[in-house]
Amino acid sequence: MISKNMKILVDKSAAISALFTEGKRMRQILGDENVFDFGIGNPNVKAPLSVNKTAIELLENMDSLALHSYTDGAGIPTVRQTIAESLNHRFQEEYTGENIVMTTGAAGGLNVILKVLLDQGDEVLTFAPYFSEYDVYVANAGGRLIAIEPNIPSFLPDAKKLAESITPKTKAIIINNPNNPTGVVYDEETLKKIAEVLEAKQKEFGNAIYLISDEPYRELVFDGATVPYIPKIYKNTIVAYSFSKSLSLPGDRIGYLTIPSSVEDFQDVVYGAGVANRVLGFVNAPALQQLVVAKCCDEKSDIAFYDNNRGILYNALIQYGFECAKPQGAFYLFVKALEEDDVAFVNKAKEFGILMTPGDGFGCKGYVRIAYCVARDTIERALPSFKKLAEAYKH
Amino acid sequence: MISKNMKILVDKSAAISALFTEGKRMRQILGDENVFDFGIGNPNVKAPLSVNKTAIELLENMDSLALHSYTDGAGIPTVRQTIAESLNHRFQEEYTGENIVMTTGAAGGLNVILKVLLDQGDEVLTFAPYFSEYDVYVANAGGRLIAIEPNIPSFLPDAKKLAESITPKTKAIIINNPNNPTGVVYDEETLKKIAEVLEAKQKEFGNAIYLISDEPYRELVFDGATVPYIPKIYKNTIVAYSFSKSLSLPGDRIGYLTIPSSVEDFQDVVYGAGVANRVLGFVNAPALQQLVVAKCCDEKSDIAFYDNNRGILYNALIQYGFECAKPQGAFYLFVKALEEDDVAFVNKAKEFGILMTPGDGFGCKGYVRIAYCVARDTIERALPSFKKLAEAYKH
Repeated sequence: MISKNMKILVDKSAAISALFTEGKRMRQILGDENVFDFGIGNPNVKAPLSVNKTAIELLENMDSLALHSYTDGAGIPTVRQTIAESLNHRFQEEYTGENIVMTTGAAGGLNVILKVLLDQGDEVLTFAPYFSEYDVYVANAGGRLIAIEPNIPSFLPDAKKLAESITPKTKAIIINNPNNPTGVVYDEETLKKIAEVLEAKQKEFGNAIYLISDEPYRELVFDGATVPYIPKIYKNTIVAYSFSKSLSLPGDRIGYLTIPSSVEDFQDVVYGAGVANRVLGFVNAPALQQLVVAKCCDEKSDIAFYDNNRGILYNALIQYGFECAKPQGAFYLFVKALEEDDVAFVNKAKEFGILMTPGDGFGCKGYVRIAYCVARDTIERALPSFKKLAEAYKH
Repeated sequence: MISKNMKILVDKSAAISALFTEGKRMRQILGDENVFDFGIGNPNVKAPLSVNKTAIELLENMDSLALHSYTDGAGIPTVRQTIAESLNHRFQEEYTGENIVMTTGAAGGLNVILKVLLDQGDEVLTFAPYFSEYDVYVANAGGRLIAIEPNIPSFLPDAKKLAESITPKTKAIIINNPNNPTGVVYDEETLKKIAEVLEAKQKEFGNAIYLISDEPYRELVFDGATVPYIPKIYKNTIVAYSFSKSLSLPGDRIGYLTIPSSVEDFQDVVYGAGVANRVLGFVNAPALQQLVVAKCCDEKSDIAFYDNNRGILYNALIQYGFECAKPQGAFYLFVKALEEDDVAFVNKAKEFGILMTPGDGFGCKGYVRIAYCVARDTIERALPSFKKLAEAYKH
């Protein structure tokens, strides 16, 4: 008696949960110390000390009524202003608080901006492999997500394929930079080609095409890589940001949308985002967390931890014979399965105590995602199992 | 270029904001001390001291990684269990944590349960006057809200009208008890009649009809009134609760759904609610707030404050000649406008510095809502203006 669409989501989710139930069963058979879970992207470094310190100061000193009060749908004005100033400093922009809308994480932000933009039946494009929740976020707002096939082995977005995929119904494209699941950072040259296509298609169809850049991993980059600031490249860009990774606050549900004044129908978009926060039931991003991130937005959790994990695991996997581009961002490796069927490969890996995620769920068969945001010790102890897994395919 | 539906919401919201801009203008003309804002239901008593104390203890002593981590979509298992036990104690139920799903306030909970239940085109019934956001919450999930006309002057739900309004497409009804905007508490006898109609219609159409009880004002009752616990009266009841009012935490966005094991397709509904939290972009109710309310769920903010406000304002308004049923719950008076057009009456009241909300927005023309959750001083200083407003209609 639940809705048909929800029944599909429930069954799909139950299948994923079954994997974890199996993880439990594996622990019983192999022993806790012989099971290595690389399935979930849950940060494994602590929030900077200033986060808890700031929260305690607010709870001790701020007027309690004001601290726990509803905020504007778009967020607390001083918080929006502080974040705008931080972005101005980092990216040489001229934002004011009006360009920032506080959201319940990037997931909240994406649902808000899609609700603002999409009419029933509108199309949204993304590049596979892509974060699998985009399908349902777009559907929540009445739209349809269309994934452009992966560009193997670079996993960079392909401007030519984009041009072929845009129709008069295309209202937006979503990109995720650095990318989950590949860890690839989209470079400026590639993004400029994407922008050229979007500009041309806007003219051709006489419609705005918004670029929504989902950037929860922006601060998680290595080897001196930089993540281009896309509003500088394409003016109809809206950025969805989250503090889940940069400050290790995934459970706190806090992030924001940046809506530059240059986006088409700016006033309606930014005002609509505040309204969408309310009507979608978020009402406002959690007030305490808004105030905390305003104080801590220029800090970072320990990125070097992930970098070291990446180095240890990547080097070992290459040595064992796995194929994988060395990613410059996020905390994932996207590795070619050692047989055609990535789901079968994931099942094989379980025999060696290794849990990972099939690429199929990200719109890219034949690959698996390894989330290396785990304790160092888990990686080190898992290496012999990865070696045995590789050897199992050499016979 | 924003979506057509969102454009309608934006324009509507802008009209409401214009009222507040006008409030600002009024303050400039009349002086701050002569403007009395009874427009918004923002709690005006502080959270119990234990709330901040508990939050500080968690921030100081709990493992930081665990504290800020993602939680299960349905909430932290120990939190769900604690809330279940509190409800068992209060209502002699036998819930476990499985019956509780933590949500981002009641607004989040309503969006979650509607997403779980509704197929495109399903109908949801409610009784006018009703909380105006229900329209868009139901529309978010693809359904259509149908309001049953108000039962004047009792404002109690009318079982006969309900029976006439149910169709084979009716998937749920939403009631709000105590009611916003009237403050009326629906009594057990009335609710039993509603339950009888629902039972009969379930049999007639062979469909489950869920009763969603929206109860953010459950603890705000006066004169010894009690709010019936509806799952005891009708087994297909799901309760949406919020700590916004009971603990004065509206900005924190924390509440829960109670899904009794007796509801039809219980397993799918409760599992679906966890999935819906994820796919709607809430992901999880804010983790710190989940842990705080688990410790404080049996406490209350200072309800007597509202009771005293109610007494002072109600007695004065009756003395001045206004018509209003004395409400036993929430923090609103629903007063008959002194002319047919409630919007014109609200505009007239502004001349005397009084801001209130037209009943039209709640599906009940000819009345106005006065939110008395304001500082005591505001009420006392506003009384002469209310008197003048009444006198203005006596000439």
